[in-house]
Amino acid sequence: MTRYEVRLAGEGGQGMILAGLILAEAAVMFDHKNACQTQSYGPEARGGASQSEVVIDTDEIDYPKVIAADALLVLSQEGCDRYAPGLKRDGLLIVDAVNVRRAPAGRAHSVPITRIAEETTGRSITANVVGLGLLVGLTGVVTREALRSAVAARAPRGTEELNLKALQAGFDAADGLLDAHRRKG
Amino acid sequence: MTRYEVRLAGEGGQGMILAGLILAEAAVMFDHKNACQTQSYGPEARGGASQSEVVIDTDEIDYPKVIAADALLVLSQEGCDRYAPGLKRDGLLIVDAVNVRRAPAGRAHSVPITRIAEETTGRSITANVVGLGLLVGLTGVVTREALRSAVAARAPRGTEELNLKALQAGFDAADGLLDAHRRKG
Repeated sequence: MTRYEVRLAGEGGQGMILAGLILAEAAVMFDHKNACQTQSYGPEARGGASQSEVVIDTDEIDYPKVIAADALLVLSQEGCDRYAPGLKRDGLLIVDAVNVRRAPAGRAHSVPITRIAEETTGRSITANVVGLGLLVGLTGVVTREALRSAVAARAPRGTEELNLKALQAGFDAADGLLDAHRRKG
Repeated sequence: MTRYEVRLAGEGGQGMILAGLILAEAAVMFDHKNACQTQSYGPEARGGASQSEVVIDTDEIDYPKVIAADALLVLSQEGCDRYAPGLKRDGLLIVDAVNVRRAPAGRAHSVPITRIAEETTGRSITANVVGLGLLVGLTGVVTREALRSAVAARAPRGTEELNLKALQAGFDAADGLLDAHRRKG
Protein backbone atom coordinates (compact mmCIF):
# COMPACT_ATOMS: atom_id res chain seq x y z
CA MET A 1 0.00 0.00 0.00
CA THR A 2 1.05 3.52 -0.66
CA ARG A 3 -1.81 5.99 -1.02
CA TYR A 4 -5.11 5.07 0.60
CA GLU A 5 -8.19 7.25 0.67
CA VAL A 6 -10.91 6.93 3.31
CA ARG A 7 -14.13 8.87 3.60
CA LEU A 8 -16.34 8.79 6.69
CA ALA A 9 -19.78 10.29 6.35
CA GLY A 10 -22.71 10.72 8.62
CA GLU A 11 -24.81 13.32 10.31
CA GLY A 12 -23.47 16.03 12.53
CA GLY A 13 -23.12 14.59 16.03
CA GLN A 14 -22.27 11.06 14.86
CA GLY A 15 -18.59 11.70 15.48
CA MET A 16 -17.25 11.25 11.97
CA ILE A 17 -14.74 14.09 12.32
CA LEU A 18 -13.38 12.57 15.51
CA ALA A 19 -13.26 9.17 13.82
CA GLY A 20 -11.19 10.67 11.02
CA LEU A 21 -8.87 12.25 13.53
CA ILE A 22 -8.39 8.94 15.33
CA LEU A 23 -7.62 7.17 12.06
CA ALA A 24 -5.09 9.83 11.07
CA GLU A 25 -3.57 9.65 14.53
CA ALA A 26 -3.19 5.88 14.28
CA ALA A 27 -1.41 6.34 10.96
CA VAL A 28 0.87 9.18 12.06
CA MET A 29 1.70 8.36 15.67
CA PHE A 30 1.69 4.61 15.70
CA ASP A 31 2.26 3.44 12.13
CA HIS A 32 4.63 6.32 11.23
CA LYS A 33 2.87 7.23 8.02
CA ASN A 34 1.68 10.57 6.66
CA ALA A 35 -1.94 11.68 6.87
CA CYS A 36 -4.12 14.51 5.65
CA GLN A 37 -7.47 15.24 7.19
CA THR A 38 -10.06 17.44 5.66
CA GLN A 39 -13.64 17.84 6.67
CA SER A 40 -16.82 19.46 5.57
CA TYR A 41 -20.17 20.08 7.08
CA GLY A 42 -23.54 20.46 5.52
CA PRO A 43 -25.26 23.84 5.54
CA GLU A 44 -25.73 23.36 9.27
CA ALA A 45 -23.22 21.45 11.33
CA ARG A 46 -25.80 20.12 13.74
CA GLY A 47 -28.05 17.52 12.21
CA GLY A 48 -26.72 18.26 8.72
CA ALA A 49 -24.31 16.11 6.78
CA SER A 50 -20.78 15.83 8.05
CA GLN A 51 -17.91 14.10 6.35
CA SER A 52 -14.29 13.56 7.01
CA GLU A 53 -11.62 12.61 4.50
CA VAL A 54 -8.40 10.93 5.53
CA VAL A 55 -5.62 10.28 3.06
CA ILE A 56 -2.87 8.01 4.33
CA ASP A 57 0.38 7.30 2.60
CA THR A 58 3.70 5.72 3.47
CA ASP A 59 5.24 8.11 0.96
CA GLU A 60 4.68 11.80 0.49
CA ILE A 61 1.06 12.74 -0.06
CA ASP A 62 0.84 14.56 -3.35
CA TYR A 63 -2.80 15.63 -3.12
CA PRO A 64 -4.60 15.87 0.22
CA LYS A 65 -8.21 15.25 -0.75
CA VAL A 66 -10.05 12.09 -1.62
CA ILE A 67 -10.12 11.65 -5.38
CA ALA A 68 -11.94 8.29 -5.44
CA ALA A 69 -12.27 6.65 -2.05
CA ASP A 70 -10.74 3.24 -1.42
CA ALA A 71 -13.06 2.85 1.55
CA LEU A 72 -16.26 4.61 2.55
CA LEU A 73 -18.03 4.28 5.88
CA VAL A 74 -21.48 5.83 6.02
CA LEU A 75 -23.78 6.09 8.99
CA SER A 76 -26.57 8.05 7.29
CA GLN A 77 -28.76 7.66 4.23
CA GLU A 78 -27.79 11.11 2.98
CA GLY A 79 -24.11 10.26 3.30
CA CYS A 80 -24.62 7.08 1.31
CA ASP A 81 -26.60 8.79 -1.42
CA ARG A 82 -24.04 11.53 -1.74
CA TYR A 83 -20.75 9.65 -1.50
CA ALA A 84 -21.28 6.04 -2.65
CA PRO A 85 -21.05 7.12 -6.32
CA GLY A 86 -17.58 8.55 -5.68
CA LEU A 87 -16.16 5.28 -4.42
CA LYS A 88 -13.57 3.42 -6.49
CA ARG A 89 -15.00 0.62 -8.62
CA ASP A 90 -13.44 -1.97 -6.31
CA GLY A 91 -13.65 0.24 -3.23
CA LEU A 92 -15.06 -0.94 0.07
CA LEU A 93 -18.48 0.38 1.07
CA ILE A 94 -19.62 -0.12 4.66
CA VAL A 95 -23.06 1.15 5.62
CA ASP A 96 -24.92 1.17 8.89
CA ALA A 97 -27.87 -1.16 8.32
CA VAL A 98 -29.88 0.73 10.94
CA ASN A 99 -29.74 4.14 9.27
CA VAL A 100 -29.07 3.29 5.63
CA ARG A 101 -31.97 1.56 3.94
CA ARG A 102 -31.00 2.09 0.32
CA ALA A 103 -27.45 1.27 -0.72
CA PRO A 104 -26.01 0.39 -4.16
CA ALA A 105 -27.10 -3.18 -4.93
CA GLY A 106 -24.53 -5.88 -4.37
CA ARG A 107 -21.81 -3.51 -3.30
CA ALA A 108 -22.42 -2.56 0.29
CA HIS A 109 -21.43 -4.41 3.41
CA SER A 110 -24.53 -3.59 5.42
CA VAL A 111 -23.79 -4.05 9.12
CA PRO A 112 -26.01 -2.94 12.00
CA ILE A 113 -23.27 -0.69 13.33
CA THR A 114 -25.48 1.45 15.54
CA ARG A 115 -27.14 -1.61 17.06
CA ILE A 116 -23.78 -3.26 17.73
CA ALA A 117 -22.68 -0.05 19.46
CA GLU A 118 -25.82 0.02 21.61
CA GLU A 119 -25.60 -3.65 22.52
CA THR A 120 -21.87 -3.51 23.29
CA THR A 121 -21.61 -0.26 25.18
CA GLY A 122 -25.16 0.90 25.78
CA ARG A 123 -24.35 4.06 23.84
CA SER A 124 -25.14 4.58 20.18
CA ILE A 125 -22.58 7.41 20.06
CA THR A 126 -19.86 4.75 19.97
CA ALA A 127 -21.07 3.70 16.50
CA ASN A 128 -18.26 5.76 14.99
CA VAL A 129 -15.67 3.62 16.77
CA VAL A 130 -17.44 0.36 15.89
CA GLY A 131 -17.41 1.57 12.29
CA LEU A 132 -13.70 2.39 12.44
CA GLY A 133 -13.00 -1.08 13.80
CA LEU A 134 -14.92 -2.60 10.91
CA LEU A 135 -13.16 -0.49 8.32
CA VAL A 136 -9.68 -1.12 9.67
CA GLY A 137 -10.42 -4.77 10.39
CA LEU A 138 -11.43 -5.28 6.74
CA THR A 139 -8.79 -3.10 5.08
CA GLY A 140 -5.74 -3.06 7.32
CA VAL A 141 -5.12 0.54 6.27
CA VAL A 142 -3.55 0.97 9.71
CA THR A 143 -2.67 -1.85 12.08
CA ARG A 144 -5.26 -2.91 14.65
CA GLU A 145 -2.71 -2.15 17.36
CA ALA A 146 -2.20 1.38 16.06
CA LEU A 147 -5.94 1.99 15.99
CA ARG A 148 -6.34 0.59 19.48
CA SER A 149 -3.64 2.94 20.76
CA ALA A 150 -5.20 5.91 19.01
CA VAL A 151 -8.68 5.14 20.36
CA ALA A 152 -7.29 4.73 23.88
CA ALA A 153 -5.39 8.00 23.57
CA ARG A 154 -8.26 9.99 22.12
CA ALA A 155 -11.31 8.67 23.96
CA PRO A 156 -12.74 11.22 26.39
CA ARG A 157 -11.53 10.62 29.94
CA GLY A 158 -13.41 7.83 31.60
CA THR A 159 -14.71 6.35 28.35
CA GLU A 160 -11.54 4.51 27.30
CA GLU A 161 -12.83 1.03 28.18
CA LEU A 162 -16.18 1.71 26.60
CA ASN A 163 -14.57 2.83 23.37
CA LEU A 164 -12.09 -0.05 23.32
CA LYS A 165 -15.04 -2.44 23.71
CA ALA A 166 -16.75 -0.71 20.79
CA LEU A 167 -13.57 -1.02 18.75
CA GLN A 168 -13.24 -4.72 19.52
CA ALA A 169 -16.85 -5.25 18.48
CA GLY A 170 -15.96 -3.61 15.16
CA PHE A 171 -12.94 -5.88 14.73
CA ASP A 172 -15.11 -8.91 15.57
CA ALA A 173 -17.71 -7.88 13.01
CA ALA A 174 -14.92 -7.56 10.44
CA ASP A 175 -13.64 -11.03 11.31
CA GLY A 176 -17.17 -12.39 10.93
CA LEU A 177 -17.43 -10.91 7.43
CA LEU A 178 -13.98 -12.19 6.49
CA ASP A 179 -14.84 -15.70 7.73
CA ALA A 180 -18.12 -15.71 5.81
CA HIS A 181 -16.25 -14.57 2.71
CA ARG A 182 -13.69 -17.35 3.12
CA ARG A 183 -16.37 -19.98 3.60
CA LYS A 184 -18.05 -18.85 0.40
CA GLY A 185 -14.66 -19.39 -1.26
CA MET B 1 -5.62 33.66 7.26
CA THR B 2 -6.14 30.90 4.82
CA ARG B 3 -3.11 28.64 4.28
CA TYR B 4 -0.54 28.49 7.04
CA GLU B 5 2.54 26.29 7.06
CA VAL B 6 4.29 25.17 10.23
CA ARG B 7 7.42 23.09 10.58
CA LEU B 8 8.57 21.59 13.88
CA ALA B 9 12.07 20.16 13.96
CA GLY B 10 14.22 18.53 16.57
CA GLU B 11 15.86 15.30 17.45
CA GLY B 12 14.10 11.98 17.69
CA GLY B 13 12.63 11.73 21.17
CA GLN B 14 11.90 15.45 21.51
CA GLY B 15 8.27 14.88 20.64
CA MET B 16 8.03 16.97 17.48
CA ILE B 17 5.74 14.47 15.74
CA LEU B 18 3.38 14.49 18.71
CA ALA B 19 3.52 18.28 18.78
CA GLY B 20 2.52 18.36 15.12
CA LEU B 21 -0.33 16.01 15.82
CA ILE B 22 -1.59 18.17 18.68
CA LEU B 23 -1.45 21.28 16.49
CA ALA B 24 -3.35 19.55 13.70
CA GLU B 25 -5.86 18.26 16.23
CA ALA B 26 -6.42 21.76 17.60
CA ALA B 27 -7.08 22.98 14.08
CA VAL B 28 -9.37 20.14 13.03
CA MET B 29 -11.31 19.30 16.18
CA PHE B 30 -11.60 22.62 17.90
CA ASP B 31 -11.13 25.30 15.25
CA HIS B 32 -12.90 23.32 12.48
CA LYS B 33 -10.19 23.83 9.90
CA ASN B 34 -8.40 21.37 7.63
CA ALA B 35 -4.96 20.02 8.38
CA CYS B 36 -2.30 17.89 6.76
CA GLN B 37 0.47 16.31 8.72
CA THR B 38 3.56 14.83 7.24
CA GLN B 39 6.68 13.75 9.00
CA SER B 40 10.14 12.57 8.30
CA TYR B 41 12.92 11.11 10.30
CA GLY B 42 16.62 11.17 9.83
CA PRO B 43 18.46 8.00 8.84
CA GLU B 44 17.72 6.72 12.32
CA ALA B 45 14.56 7.70 14.16
CA ARG B 46 16.21 7.62 17.57
CA GLY B 47 18.62 10.44 18.11
CA GLY B 48 18.50 11.47 14.47
CA ALA B 49 16.66 14.44 13.08
CA SER B 50 12.89 14.39 13.22
CA GLN B 51 10.57 16.90 11.68
CA SER B 52 6.88 17.36 11.38
CA GLU B 53 5.03 19.54 8.91
CA VAL B 54 1.54 20.81 9.55
CA VAL B 55 -0.40 22.71 6.92
CA ILE B 56 -3.57 24.35 8.19
CA ASP B 57 -6.19 26.01 6.07
CA THR B 58 -9.72 27.27 6.52
CA ASP B 59 -10.25 26.37 2.87
CA GLU B 60 -9.30 23.27 0.98
CA ILE B 61 -5.64 22.41 1.18
CA ASP B 62 -4.30 22.23 -2.34
CA TYR B 63 -0.83 20.93 -1.51
CA PRO B 64 -0.10 19.09 1.73
CA LYS B 65 3.58 19.80 2.27
CA VAL B 66 5.36 22.88 3.53
CA ILE B 67 6.51 24.96 0.57
CA ALA B 68 8.01 27.81 2.59
CA ALA B 69 7.21 27.74 6.28
CA ASP B 70 5.30 30.60 7.88
CA ALA B 71 6.58 29.45 11.24
CA LEU B 72 9.43 27.19 12.26
CA LEU B 73 10.10 25.85 15.74
CA VAL B 74 13.46 24.14 16.20
CA LEU B 75 14.76 22.41 19.28
CA SER B 76 18.07 21.21 17.82
CA GLN B 77 21.04 22.77 16.08
CA GLU B 78 20.75 20.36 13.18
CA GLY B 79 17.07 21.25 12.73
CA CYS B 80 17.95 24.93 12.65
CA ASP B 81 20.78 24.49 10.15
CA ARG B 82 18.65 22.39 7.90
CA TYR B 83 15.32 24.18 7.95
CA ALA B 84 15.89 27.87 8.76
CA PRO B 85 16.87 28.59 5.13
CA GLY B 86 13.47 27.29 3.98
CA LEU B 87 11.49 29.74 6.07
CA LYS B 88 9.52 32.53 4.39
CA ARG B 89 11.31 35.86 4.30
CA ASP B 90 8.96 37.26 6.94
CA GLY B 91 8.39 33.89 8.59
CA LEU B 92 8.64 33.32 12.32
CA LEU B 93 11.69 31.45 13.60
CA ILE B 94 11.66 30.19 17.18
CA VAL B 95 14.73 28.38 18.45
CA ASP B 96 15.52 26.74 21.76
CA ALA B 97 18.32 28.84 23.21
CA VAL B 98 19.56 25.85 25.17
CA ASN B 99 20.18 23.57 22.20
CA VAL B 100 20.59 26.01 19.31
CA ARG B 101 23.75 28.10 19.55
CA ARG B 102 23.94 29.35 15.98
CA ALA B 103 20.81 30.79 14.39
CA PRO B 104 20.42 33.23 11.47
CA ALA B 105 21.45 36.66 12.76
CA GLY B 106 18.63 39.01 13.66
CA ARG B 107 15.91 36.62 12.67
CA ALA B 108 15.46 34.13 15.45
CA HIS B 109 13.44 34.43 18.60
CA SER B 110 15.83 32.58 20.87
CA VAL B 111 13.99 31.37 23.95
CA PRO B 112 15.31 28.91 26.55
CA ILE B 113 12.44 26.52 25.83
CA THR B 114 14.06 23.46 27.39
CA ARG B 115 14.95 25.38 30.54
CA ILE B 116 11.42 26.79 30.84
CA ALA B 117 10.11 23.24 30.51
CA GLU B 118 12.42 21.97 33.22
CA GLU B 119 11.68 24.85 35.58
CA THR B 120 7.92 24.65 35.04
CA THR B 121 7.33 20.93 35.07
CA GLY B 122 10.61 19.36 36.13
CA ARG B 123 10.66 17.46 32.84
CA SER B 124 12.56 18.59 29.77
CA ILE B 125 10.37 16.32 27.63
CA THR B 126 7.61 18.95 27.92
CA ALA B 127 9.74 21.35 25.85
CA ASN B 128 7.69 20.41 22.80
CA VAL B 129 4.52 21.71 24.47
CA VAL B 130 6.23 24.87 25.74
CA GLY B 131 7.38 25.44 22.15
CA LEU B 132 3.88 24.90 20.80
CA GLY B 133 2.53 27.44 23.29
CA LEU B 134 5.12 29.94 22.12
CA LEU B 135 4.39 29.36 18.46
CA VAL B 136 0.63 29.57 18.84
CA GLY B 137 0.85 32.46 21.31
CA LEU B 138 2.85 34.45 18.77
CA THR B 139 1.02 33.46 15.60
CA GLY B 140 -2.56 32.66 16.55
CA VAL B 141 -2.56 29.95 13.86
CA VAL B 142 -5.05 28.16 16.08
CA THR B 143 -6.80 29.66 19.08
CA ARG B 144 -5.21 29.24 22.49
CA GLU B 145 -8.39 27.55 23.67
CA ALA B 146 -8.23 25.03 20.82
CA LEU B 147 -4.61 24.24 21.62
CA ARG B 148 -5.40 23.88 25.32
CA SER B 149 -8.18 21.43 24.51
CA ALA B 150 -5.94 19.45 22.17
CA VAL B 151 -3.10 19.26 24.70
CA ALA B 152 -5.51 18.15 27.42
CA ALA B 153 -6.99 15.53 25.12
CA ARG B 154 -3.68 14.20 23.88
CA ALA B 155 -1.44 14.31 26.93
CA PRO B 156 -0.64 10.84 28.25
CA ARG B 157 -2.91 9.87 31.17
CA GLY B 158 -1.81 11.46 34.37
CA THR B 159 0.30 14.14 32.69
CA GLU B 160 -2.52 16.49 31.68
CA GLU B 161 -1.81 19.09 34.38
CA LEU B 162 1.90 18.94 33.75
CA ASN B 163 1.42 19.52 30.05
CA LEU B 164 -1.13 22.29 30.55
CA LYS B 165 1.38 24.03 32.83
CA ALA B 166 4.03 23.68 30.14
CA LEU B 167 1.60 25.11 27.60
CA GLN B 168 0.77 28.07 29.81
CA ALA B 169 4.49 28.74 30.27
CA GLY B 170 4.77 28.86 26.48
CA PHE B 171 1.85 31.31 26.22
CA ASP B 172 3.43 33.44 28.95
CA ALA B 173 6.76 33.50 27.11
CA ALA B 174 4.92 34.57 23.96
CA ASP B 175 3.17 37.35 25.87
CA GLY B 176 6.53 38.47 27.22
CA LEU B 177 7.94 38.71 23.70
CA LEU B 178 4.86 40.53 22.44
CA ASP B 179 5.05 43.04 25.32
CA ALA B 180 8.74 43.69 24.69
CA HIS B 181 7.97 44.20 21.01
CA ARG B 182 5.21 46.69 21.83
CA ARG B 183 7.43 48.63 24.20
CA LYS B 184 10.06 48.92 21.49
CA GLY B 185 7.25 50.34 19.34
